Amino acid sequence: MTSNERLKNFPALPVEEIGSFHVGGRMIRLEGLPARDRVSTPGGPVHHVDPNGEIVVGQLYVQYVRLLAPKAAAPLLLWHGGGMTGASWENTPDGRTGWQMFFLRAGFDTYVSDAVERGRASFAPFPQVYPEAPYFRTAREAWEDTFRFGPPGSWHPDPALRRTYPGLQFPVDAFEAFLSQGVPRWSCNDGLTQTAYDALVRRLDCDVVILTHSQGGHFGLTAALHAPERVRAVISLEPSGAPDPASSDVAIVKGTPHLFVWGDNWRHNSFWANSRPAAERWRDALAEAGCDVTWIDLPERGMRGNSHALMADRNSDEIAGLVLDWMAARGLAGS
Amino acid sequence: MTSNERLKNFPALPVEEIGSFHVGGRMIRLEGLPARDRVSTPGGPVHHVDPNGEIVVGQLYVQYVRLLAPKAAAPLLLWHGGGMTGASWENTPDGRTGWQMFFLRAGFDTYVSDAVERGRASFAPFPQVYPEAPYFRTAREAWEDTFRFGPPGSWHPDPALRRTYPGLQFPVDAFEAFLSQGVPRWSCNDGLTQTAYDALVRRLDCDVVILTHSQGGHFGLTAALHAPERVRAVISLEPSGAPDPASSDVAIVKGTPHLFVWGDNWRHNSFWANSRPAAERWRDALAEAGCDVTWIDLPERGMRGNSHALMADRNSDEIAGLVLDWMAARGLAGS
Repeated sequence: MTSNERLKNFPALPVEEIGSFHVGGRMIRLEGLPARDRVSTPGGPVHHVDPNGEIVVGQLYVQYVRLLAPKAAAPLLLWHGGGMTGASWENTPDGRTGWQMFFLRAGFDTYVSDAVERGRASFAPFPQVYPEAPYFRTAREAWEDTFRFGPPGSWHPDPALRRTYPGLQFPVDAFEAFLSQGVPRWSCNDGLTQTAYDALVRRLDCDVVILTHSQGGHFGLTAALHAPERVRAVISLEPSGAPDPASSDVAIVKGTPHLFVWGDNWRHNSFWANSRPAAERWRDALAEAGCDVTWIDLPERGMRGNSHALMADRNSDEIAGLVLDWMAARGLAGS
Repeated sequence: MTSNERLKNFPALPVEEIGSFHVGGRMIRLEGLPARDRVSTPGGPVHHVDPNGEIVVGQLYVQYVRLLAPKAAAPLLLWHGGGMTGASWENTPDGRTGWQMFFLRAGFDTYVSDAVERGRASFAPFPQVYPEAPYFRTAREAWEDTFRFGPPGSWHPDPALRRTYPGLQFPVDAFEAFLSQGVPRWSCNDGLTQTAYDALVRRLDCDVVILTHSQGGHFGLTAALHAPERVRAVISLEPSGAPDPASSDVAIVKGTPHLFVWGDNWRHNSFWANSRPAAERWRDALAEAGCDVTWIDLPERGMRGNSHALMADRNSDEIAGLVLDWMAARGLAGS
């Protein structure tokens, strides 16, 4: 029986507690800004606002679902990609259950984050704190560049005129719903984000398995380097970057199993063709150090047409099943 | 036995599904912006970004927890206040379980939103879409003005030098954690937000109970006016605004029970002393129309020292219990 078959028709999820908290963050002081007058609610009074003073910046948000009796050896930390939030894991844009629910049903406690600057983690003012304005990913960039739904030139505002790669697994009828999951991003906050993720791993005070998507990949691979005694495995879905073997000591994580999963149609996409080599170099360094490292190119297993949004594609549960089986083979999924 | 006693030592929460979706939103086109060069991840390639093109704006985020066998007659929609997100309901800043968990244990399905412009709902660029820059609430504004932890002049960056109202119920040792829950706000998006909340009520296709905090109050009271056949009750914690009886037909909601709950120490706070009359006028109009309306000033019930952050105060579960008992008396809490 496959993982997917085992999880079907699960009767109910016995949950102990759902909650959230913020990690990291520090108080800074804003000064020299002009006062403003704000009406906070329709019909409300005018409120004179002095924007100068202390604010908190750099925090990361974590929402947890703890099961009454988790089967898995360690909770699963789900870290989203660039311009996204933890919502990536909660539902697919076409309304199926997401990977959070999949792994809860498989017996994992889940900790879903919004990284610094995104979603419920909040962001800081610019140019006072962040040096620049945020980036808003356009539909074209999402379609052609980041998520590889179609080749260059295939995006069109009219849904009827959009083209996709043959056999694309992403449910393009839900493209607007998928875009709705996105949030603006900055390019200047990697250090803040890594610091906050490292603080999360320390704060949990237990072993963890880290599962990342895209930009989250570099943070997850690095978090393992920073806490190898805590991180039982690192799973990277299409990481857009990775530590550099020339400047990071790969031997630190040689005892930590690593899984990489890649979709289809990246060869002729310049962003992804340029981004993959960093992950390949880290994979090779891991393997040379004797690490248990698995690299899955889904097309080589006969699974074609997957986009960069593996957890949103129509076969998302099938891919989650591959990840679960990989963990089960390493004793991380419980009995 | 009180509601609080009934909920103690609840063994496990039988959950059917946890997930999320976005509501509302529409595609707009950005034009005339200069191109930028971005490095998306440390060590990654330089990515030439054309910021012009279609983006989605105006969406609202909703996360749901559906029980296997909800006892309550209708799900509870939890709508946060200004400069906040749904995280308000998930945990108290000092680490106790939040109102989401309280009402799940009481047998309600919960739908926790992030309103337009906040948290996982994302925001739109300014000045291209929103006319102005966001407001970042300072620690002083939070302490003295919005949340009424202490009187004017009582905030100080040094925790040892901060003063509070006598007997304050808010756990001030967790003030930085509370600030971490906040997000920037705009003052120009009330129309967008109301539209998205109304769309949420329509989309759920079932009766609902709406529970709001602060700025959410005006949206909740108005949502009932827009869908009286759907909204079984409206509960407003310290609403910062309310519909105007001179321009809204209160008779539309005369069959909808309304509960208002207020904390302490608002008389000498100019923002709240100026904000309460709008809610008082709406309450009086509801009562005159024959509506079942309850107005609780907690100090008049012997509960003193509550701040504006009622769901974060030390007696948050006791206040939730009052709300639950009010619903139970109206047949909304199940058996």
